[in-house]
Amino acid sequence: MASFSTKPASGFRDFLPPEAAIRLNTLETISETAQHFGFHPIMMPGCEKLETLLGKGGGTENEKLLFPLLKRGDALSRSLSQVSETKDTEIANAMNLADLGLRFDLTLPLARYYARFRNELPRPFKALQYGSVWRAERAQKGRYREFVQCDMDVIGTAAATAEIEVLNACLSIFKKLSLPGITVKINDRRLLLAIGKSLGIDEDTWNDILISIDKLDKIGQEKLLVELKEKTDKAEAIVDLFFAAESLNENQYQIFSAYDAESVANIQLIINSLQDSYPNVKFEFAASLVRGQDYYTGTIFEFRHNQLSGSLGGGGRYDKLLSMFGTESIPCFGGSIGFERLLLLMEELGLTRQYTASLDIVFLLFETKDISRILPIANSLRAKNLRVDVYSGTQKLKQQFRYADQLKTKFVLILGEDEWLDKKIKVKELKTGQEQSIALDDLVSTMESLCRN
Amino acid sequence: MASFSTKPASGFRDFLPPEAAIRLNTLETISETAQHFGFHPIMMPGCEKLETLLGKGGGTENEKLLFPLLKRGDALSRSLSQVSETKDTEIANAMNLADLGLRFDLTLPLARYYARFRNELPRPFKALQYGSVWRAERAQKGRYREFVQCDMDVIGTAAATAEIEVLNACLSIFKKLSLPGITVKINDRRLLLAIGKSLGIDEDTWNDILISIDKLDKIGQEKLLVELKEKTDKAEAIVDLFFAAESLNENQYQIFSAYDAESVANIQLIINSLQDSYPNVKFEFAASLVRGQDYYTGTIFEFRHNQLSGSLGGGGRYDKLLSMFGTESIPCFGGSIGFERLLLLMEELGLTRQYTASLDIVFLLFETKDISRILPIANSLRAKNLRVDVYSGTQKLKQQFRYADQLKTKFVLILGEDEWLDKKIKVKELKTGQEQSIALDDLVSTMESLCRN
Repeated sequence: MASFSTKPASGFRDFLPPEAAIRLNTLETISETAQHFGFHPIMMPGCEKLETLLGKGGGTENEKLLFPLLKRGDALSRSLSQVSETKDTEIANAMNLADLGLRFDLTLPLARYYARFRNELPRPFKALQYGSVWRAERAQKGRYREFVQCDMDVIGTAAATAEIEVLNACLSIFKKLSLPGITVKINDRRLLLAIGKSLGIDEDTWNDILISIDKLDKIGQEKLLVELKEKTDKAEAIVDLFFAAESLNENQYQIFSAYDAESVANIQLIINSLQDSYPNVKFEFAASLVRGQDYYTGTIFEFRHNQLSGSLGGGGRYDKLLSMFGTESIPCFGGSIGFERLLLLMEELGLTRQYTASLDIVFLLFETKDISRILPIANSLRAKNLRVDVYSGTQKLKQQFRYADQLKTKFVLILGEDEWLDKKIKVKELKTGQEQSIALDDLVSTMESLCRN
Repeated sequence: MASFSTKPASGFRDFLPPEAAIRLNTLETISETAQHFGFHPIMMPGCEKLETLLGKGGGTENEKLLFPLLKRGDALSRSLSQVSETKDTEIANAMNLADLGLRFDLTLPLARYYARFRNELPRPFKALQYGSVWRAERAQKGRYREFVQCDMDVIGTAAATAEIEVLNACLSIFKKLSLPGITVKINDRRLLLAIGKSLGIDEDTWNDILISIDKLDKIGQEKLLVELKEKTDKAEAIVDLFFAAESLNENQYQIFSAYDAESVANIQLIINSLQDSYPNVKFEFAASLVRGQDYYTGTIFEFRHNQLSGSLGGGGRYDKLLSMFGTESIPCFGGSIGFERLLLLMEELGLTRQYTASLDIVFLLFETKDISRILPIANSLRAKNLRVDVYSGTQKLKQQFRYADQLKTKFVLILGEDEWLDKKIKVKELKTGQEQSIALDDLVSTMESLCRN
């Protein structure tokens, strides 16, 4: 029989049990905490109609990220017969062969979902979503074609309290994960618009300039100046305004208020409301923060950590996305936790160990028939939420002990013929090698307290 | 702007918060319980190489189920240019345009995964997996194109104890979900093979006959006889053997032992080991149980419930699947819980209510600036694992109360100017309409005990 590669496709990942446990347990912490903050879990499919994914303007960017799913049956035959006729436009050809695509983010599906159910959902609606998204990017270190996103969104209100609560929930999650050294950068797209207008720069040029400013972290201030000079004769004024003012923290609010007082007041309110609750988090009004997505319309933010080059998550206000589904404009504010980077950072800081699970107990097995004796005892221990394994098979004891060792088991339990007649069980702690004999009647309570320590 | 349909693609589903909470919480119960039984969570991507998904013999069946992903970039251009040349074989054409596919089950990816990591994993290895799989089936009631599977597998041992422990874990999950009325049907493919041989029927004909026998539940005994008569002249003998013997429970073991004593003894051992621990579960040796998948090689089983026409899950031994990845044959035994049917059944039996979550507390908001006072209090309550929302916005109180009502909130908390000066907070229980004033200092402990009741 032919044999096949055992690796997943390029850019996709398998997770061994310890990594999988960390992922599951971290997701659970995120999910539980978000629910304590009044966010409600919702679920959508991994595949959407192609028109949903590509419908919004700026489709070409999305087209590049998209994994399209081939049509099937008659629909495929029909499309295939058209291929040769229109061979000149290959992308169009390809899209004609597909009818569905894998979602590349959770925001676009959420917009569809809310448009569909808006009359059944409370208003405002606080949504919690997490799951895989897929992007057909060139696979490279730290960039995957399938990865997990975690989003919290408040839909149906323009209130600053929605923005505060999304940030509050995210920061509380970082706190629960014991993650130190978080910085929150906050800005407002309306402020950026106002600055462009006030500088007398037309919108297209200004958007192009903002793309450069957004790259500051990567290219540095000098290169930015060079880049801006190619785009505008006001390059120096822009750099002065953004980066000189930002470094004068105390005057910042005042300087930028001149351009858009309301946005700046909103940023101030957000920071003041949260600062006391998170004394170890650094809050920054960062007028040069732009964020890539073109759908943002107001407050934007990003989480940073000095041991990560990119962001640890972020989000913002996007008030117009829902109108693509024919509903009126509905104010939305969302925040996303960069799950893959979060795990990377936790790993680096040694914070993941608490999330790997080891076995509490392995029962050794001498003869297959012993399973009838062991099973009810094992099940009573499991009912106390202990992790209990019964060795599958009757291999030599040495091999069974190696198995227990490999799984970092706390205790090995031995119920041989002698023990059974004495109504006792032998308990061996693997770390210390210490052995004791415990009466079967006391076993559950004793093991419970031994394993909890 | 053009507007797009708000529905997901045909065969795909959105879940509103109560349904999503039920799905999440049920999955968590399954996951936790399986981990108490020593199964280790692992994760694999949703997409696999086409060759991994289609490589195994019987590819045509899988091809029909598969959602292929279109190639991208240059690879796509090359394939497109070949389309017209080979237009006569449309499936081949289609497969040439794709390089990846969505997984249609969790077993094939598990085989690849184990082949990849077998030297790093303990042996035997007890794997727990759950997640979405995709099947390009015609969408119909109760049949979806994306659905969740939950699998437990023991890889690397032929021991009966592995089979007992998989069944034990599944039954314990049903028990934790308070699901009454479960029947477990058990059989063995080796026994079926032996019967065919003993009847002198060649293997191909016998496999064809087994396909008919497997349909008994759907077509009934009379139609089965008619169908079998077209396939063999031993139709009556077969029906007599399987269905007369099965009804004579006490003699069954003896009758079938004549064909394959070892398999029958194994079935007996499994049933005897589990029966005492699950007195409310009916265990049946069902010699007519076949199960569809062609990869089973030994013990097979299925969970049934009289309120479901199909099965509630099942599984079996598949000892040869791993050899497609070039490793030796490795004995495996797996069980799968039919997650979608499980939810359907729990819904019908009224067992899902405990899994929907309501809010404990909604703070009303008079003025945006009040958020600075409310936030630290809300966060202290959240730190006690209460579900606490702060209304986003300063709408009329009537609207805020409606919001709390719609979310089935237990208590509404009001911190007006007067209350703030008195260091008190007004607490209103929505169900009874009862109001009380609680000192801010006592709030957390009081609310904790009120909400836990």
